[in-house]
Amino acid sequence: MVALKKASDAPGLDLTAETPVPEMGPDDVLIRIVKAGICGTDRHIYEWDAWSRRRIKIGTTIGHEFVGVIAAVGADVQTVQVGQRVSGEGHIGCNRCEACRTGMAHVCDNVRIIGIDRDGTFAGYMSLPERNVWPIHASIPDNYAAIMDPLGNAVHTVMAANVSGRTVLVSGVGIIGLMAVPVARAAGASRVIAVDVNAARLDLARRLGADECLSAREEDWPERVKKLTDGRGVHVVLEMSGAQPAIRGSLEAMRNGGTMAVLGLPSGDVSLDLARHLIFKGATFLGINGRRMFETWYQMESLLLSGRVNLDPIITHVIPLKDYRRGFELMQAGEAIKVILEIG
Amino acid sequence: MVALKKASDAPGLDLTAETPVPEMGPDDVLIRIVKAGICGTDRHIYEWDAWSRRRIKIGTTIGHEFVGVIAAVGADVQTVQVGQRVSGEGHIGCNRCEACRTGMAHVCDNVRIIGIDRDGTFAGYMSLPERNVWPIHASIPDNYAAIMDPLGNAVHTVMAANVSGRTVLVSGVGIIGLMAVPVARAAGASRVIAVDVNAARLDLARRLGADECLSAREEDWPERVKKLTDGRGVHVVLEMSGAQPAIRGSLEAMRNGGTMAVLGLPSGDVSLDLARHLIFKGATFLGINGRRMFETWYQMESLLLSGRVNLDPIITHVIPLKDYRRGFELMQAGEAIKVILEIG
Amino acid sequence: MVALKKASDAPGLDLTAETPVPEMGPDDVLIRIVKAGICGTDRHIYEWDAWSRRRIKIGTTIGHEFVGVIAAVGADVQTVQVGQRVSGEGHIGCNRCEACRTGMAHVCDNVRIIGIDRDGTFAGYMSLPERNVWPIHASIPDNYAAIMDPLGNAVHTVMAANVSGRTVLVSGVGIIGLMAVPVARAAGASRVIAVDVNAARLDLARRLGADECLSAREEDWPERVKKLTDGRGVHVVLEMSGAQPAIRGSLEAMRNGGTMAVLGLPSGDVSLDLARHLIFKGATFLGINGRRMFETWYQMESLLLSGRVNLDPIITHVIPLKDYRRGFELMQAGEAIKVILEIG
Amino acid sequence: MVALKKASDAPGLDLTAETPVPEMGPDDVLIRIVKAGICGTDRHIYEWDAWSRRRIKIGTTIGHEFVGVIAAVGADVQTVQVGQRVSGEGHIGCNRCEACRTGMAHVCDNVRIIGIDRDGTFAGYMSLPERNVWPIHASIPDNYAAIMDPLGNAVHTVMAANVSGRTVLVSGVGIIGLMAVPVARAAGASRVIAVDVNAARLDLARRLGADECLSAREEDWPERVKKLTDGRGVHVVLEMSGAQPAIRGSLEAMRNGGTMAVLGLPSGDVSLDLARHLIFKGATFLGINGRRMFETWYQMESLLLSGRVNLDPIITHVIPLKDYRRGFELMQAGEAIKVILEIG
Repeated sequence: MVALKKASDAPGLDLTAETPVPEMGPDDVLIRIVKAGICGTDRHIYEWDAWSRRRIKIGTTIGHEFVGVIAAVGADVQTVQVGQRVSGEGHIGCNRCEACRTGMAHVCDNVRIIGIDRDGTFAGYMSLPERNVWPIHASIPDNYAAIMDPLGNAVHTVMAANVSGRTVLVSGVGIIGLMAVPVARAAGASRVIAVDVNAARLDLARRLGADECLSAREEDWPERVKKLTDGRGVHVVLEMSGAQPAIRGSLEAMRNGGTMAVLGLPSGDVSLDLARHLIFKGATFLGINGRRMFETWYQMESLLLSGRVNLDPIITHVIPLKDYRRGFELMQAGEAIKVILEIG
Repeated sequence: MVALKKASDAPGLDLTAETPVPEMGPDDVLIRIVKAGICGTDRHIYEWDAWSRRRIKIGTTIGHEFVGVIAAVGADVQTVQVGQRVSGEGHIGCNRCEACRTGMAHVCDNVRIIGIDRDGTFAGYMSLPERNVWPIHASIPDNYAAIMDPLGNAVHTVMAANVSGRTVLVSGVGIIGLMAVPVARAAGASRVIAVDVNAARLDLARRLGADECLSAREEDWPERVKKLTDGRGVHVVLEMSGAQPAIRGSLEAMRNGGTMAVLGLPSGDVSLDLARHLIFKGATFLGINGRRMFETWYQMESLLLSGRVNLDPIITHVIPLKDYRRGFELMQAGEAIKVILEIG
Repeated sequence: MVALKKASDAPGLDLTAETPVPEMGPDDVLIRIVKAGICGTDRHIYEWDAWSRRRIKIGTTIGHEFVGVIAAVGADVQTVQVGQRVSGEGHIGCNRCEACRTGMAHVCDNVRIIGIDRDGTFAGYMSLPERNVWPIHASIPDNYAAIMDPLGNAVHTVMAANVSGRTVLVSGVGIIGLMAVPVARAAGASRVIAVDVNAARLDLARRLGADECLSAREEDWPERVKKLTDGRGVHVVLEMSGAQPAIRGSLEAMRNGGTMAVLGLPSGDVSLDLARHLIFKGATFLGINGRRMFETWYQMESLLLSGRVNLDPIITHVIPLKDYRRGFELMQAGEAIKVILEIG
Repeated sequence: MVALKKASDAPGLDLTAETPVPEMGPDDVLIRIVKAGICGTDRHIYEWDAWSRRRIKIGTTIGHEFVGVIAAVGADVQTVQVGQRVSGEGHIGCNRCEACRTGMAHVCDNVRIIGIDRDGTFAGYMSLPERNVWPIHASIPDNYAAIMDPLGNAVHTVMAANVSGRTVLVSGVGIIGLMAVPVARAAGASRVIAVDVNAARLDLARRLGADECLSAREEDWPERVKKLTDGRGVHVVLEMSGAQPAIRGSLEAMRNGGTMAVLGLPSGDVSLDLARHLIFKGATFLGINGRRMFETWYQMESLLLSGRVNLDPIITHVIPLKDYRRGFELMQAGEAIKVILEIG
């Protein structure tokens, strides 16, 4: 089968057509991949940055977003069938630690992630444990199903922060921040404010439903957020940037008693004024990782079926797998938001 | 001043023009009433039913929904001023019990309610403690401000039940049930289903945003709710009917692990199958009373300013105070939903 | 092997020595049963009451409390080994419904229970899915491990109700109510009050740490509870009786804003004054079923290892399996609290 | 009257006997101070550090912990009487902001603190708004009542973190960390581990009920915490140190999905690895400020009346006001834990 791999200790990826179809255990499902989104993480691996070099074993097939069709099932599989259209949770918990046994598998101590710790979705086929498979409702189109992994990040963040009837600041409108805008609206936010350094992204945020969009290049943006919210600041910050100035500015723009849900990964340590921004504010910081299994998936389905979450403006390119280099180049050039690869 | 009172131990009310303007203490505010909504409770007092005869002292000015303008303030009042447009919380807590001192004044042990335990809003002026006054934002029209009391009941119920991303059944679309429909949508419900015996009310519920409307006259309606929700039932029931069959049917239509928020007052004891509907379901029942002070009021303001809660179809009649009898008759005939009296 | 079965459509049980050892699937574990507690449910089956006749298939081996040792494991079992001392969760979820997939398997739509829907623990061996097995910490004695099923009911109820720093009424001190007394204390209740009709049980509750014990035979007991709690009533009721008068009395004895966690199964419908006891109180009712998988099991282990939960006074009899009739008779006579059968 | 003031822009304090008794408004209460604890904040003011020089106005009477007796009440005071023994909440909210109006006055935007922003408790008399007064239960001794302010910090932290049935690390056993040890035990923690650099403090923590005490001078202490907790780390960290190494070590010692409640004020910015310690852990950080009004006070009363919180080992010195210098010197020398001044 075809597979896009990190074949050597160097930038770039290799597309091969001679990879064997993955083996399956009795509890696994073999999925023929139809479409797969490119994630920022994939770009890090493509560019072969310090994190990738530490984490990725040479020879790994990358990619972790996908929609596909079940091609075969292991001997003990009971809940899904050949021919079903599916996506799936790429965090594979160990199923035995306290986190896995208490509905918290998204923070499993021993998690393995497809496309990072084991072969992923930029391939003709992928094997996945039955318990990680998510059947796709007939009303959800392939292009949405192919990006449920990052959509799930956005939904997990929004739902953890409890936005219903509250004002929300989305700090950083990269792909997940952009998704968080319509998700927060659909989930009941009374007002959504976006902040970013990138004007084009802010325009897109506005089209996706942000009530106000502020440039992080203007230093007084936290004051402007406060002015837009009775002088007190937002109830909720969804931190999607990972950038220290954005985090500090957002905390300045958050009212006392507020909640900051943090998904954006900083590249190093972050210096915080805990007295001012956490303690005296009586604030709550929530670390958000992956998606809740499978509460987030049910919430995604529910939100998508409600018709209130339009992701079309985000999906800017759908291209064949063989053109993957162009996909990464479009991302690097800032011309693409979400690129989906057509595979099978 | 003018006042509409329960003047004698008999059905009906009396409109007098010679009532003295209320006295104020140093912490009180005198409000000139501009508009006041008629509540179902006022109708009970008008009809002089068993509950009213037990509870209402002859001579009481009734009414508890209102918008007005501050006409005078007591010596120690600091936070509001003469001329401000205001509504207010009609549940006056004792300010000294544990409930009042822990942000739970809506369940104060010694609560006194305007228009029931003390003189109310169907009058030229009303006195209210400063701490119960709620300034009205300039963007909120008088007709909405005049009904923030029942809107607050709806908002309190919806917010307590946590509807974000979840399916919601509104059981009973009287005035508060109707309000709960757009409120639940604005607060993030993924799907709103309404059930009632009254077809006209269901039509109105649909106009207000209900995704599905079911007649409680068809016995299998709980099964139909389940069919609309993957066979499992809704996540949340907002019980607004107070009727035993509706409560039992709603519990049948609620999925395991679901939440029923109960606002509708039954007229007597209700017989429940606790094993089936509470215990084996792992369900949560929430008793909802009044509005949270003042969290619910901030939420109302936030929802109204978001522009996502349209109450216009609910406000069917705005009539002068002197025509109050017609107001009650329209309600009795089922021709009116919400009647607002023009006073000052 | 030996097995205690409901062998015919009549009261009583049959002890046979010729039952074949259960078959195992690839994901199952075969457990040699060492000790097994007798539950009130077993007594219902022994007495062959209406519920049992509807629910139990003739031929079923009963019993669902146990400690044992793993005798064999299926081909795909990975997390446990032959020779491990274990107990296990007797509610076997379907592993595919929304409840099972969101950490709520205790309210699985399709749950099957050992000793009720399939063969149970009063036998030489029992088969159980690997995911339901709970390894027993070396410091926990067999007699405690043998009753983790009912202890888990008590812990689930206490933890759901959030007793930390709050006053607690245990309504009904049958076996699970008795367990709830030391559990509530260990979990941080500031004061534990027990109420029951049975004076001997109340004495035992006192020995287990109840601060106050009241007879439900004295009609004014709810008033006495209020007097013991500043006149306002308890914060939390743990309803273990299933009896309508106790439920209504407990709600009378609960303060506004309080929480009632309901585990006790009423034998029929219960008539409640929802207006007075749920709505005006702003109360919360929580239906409690089984044990959370496996949050409750971790909590149990934690509580037992803390040394603060003494169950010895509850375990009144440990007898050989062959004397099972005496066990049931001791329960019927009210002479036993918890009877444990020695099997292997 | 007597008063201990910051009389000049220099280290030290001045004890004067000629200060006029404070004036009262109609909603205020005049309290004759009986005993008053010295807080670490008072020591900062005594030493006249950078923070104090910015914050304290010359002429302010300091002190904010106290027990006293009501000597006079303003014209509009209704809930308390002359002669009552009382303590009180020293954070005086504005009573008009959203925080104050929603039960969150502990994070009021405009809070003023006694002994810092206005005259405090090291004086013969102090004026306090009626709503901030807390009557002391007859069973609570003066020495405990005199330190309910810091005890409330400990109780607020413990209760916010939800310790029931969970393992708890107290990071830093200064006075509030020490108080947190017995409070966490009484509130239901299954195991309490304390860590500090000071061996004498750790000994005291052990006497107060800590199950394990670790020296922060041994670099691998986070690993040792993990070993004590099944290799996974504690569920809850109570951060009382304000020290960056302790914060980072505690986060290392906290399990995935854990909660860190942060009360200890760092003296400057803190550098955190948010990816490792917040995001991938799926952790929650809670900023804790002051005491919840008055939920924390009810919880304190409840805990103290339960008899399970012994603070005697913490109260090391009770001395006359005139010996205040010795009090501060004992604190500076590390010989005192809590010093209480006898005033009236």
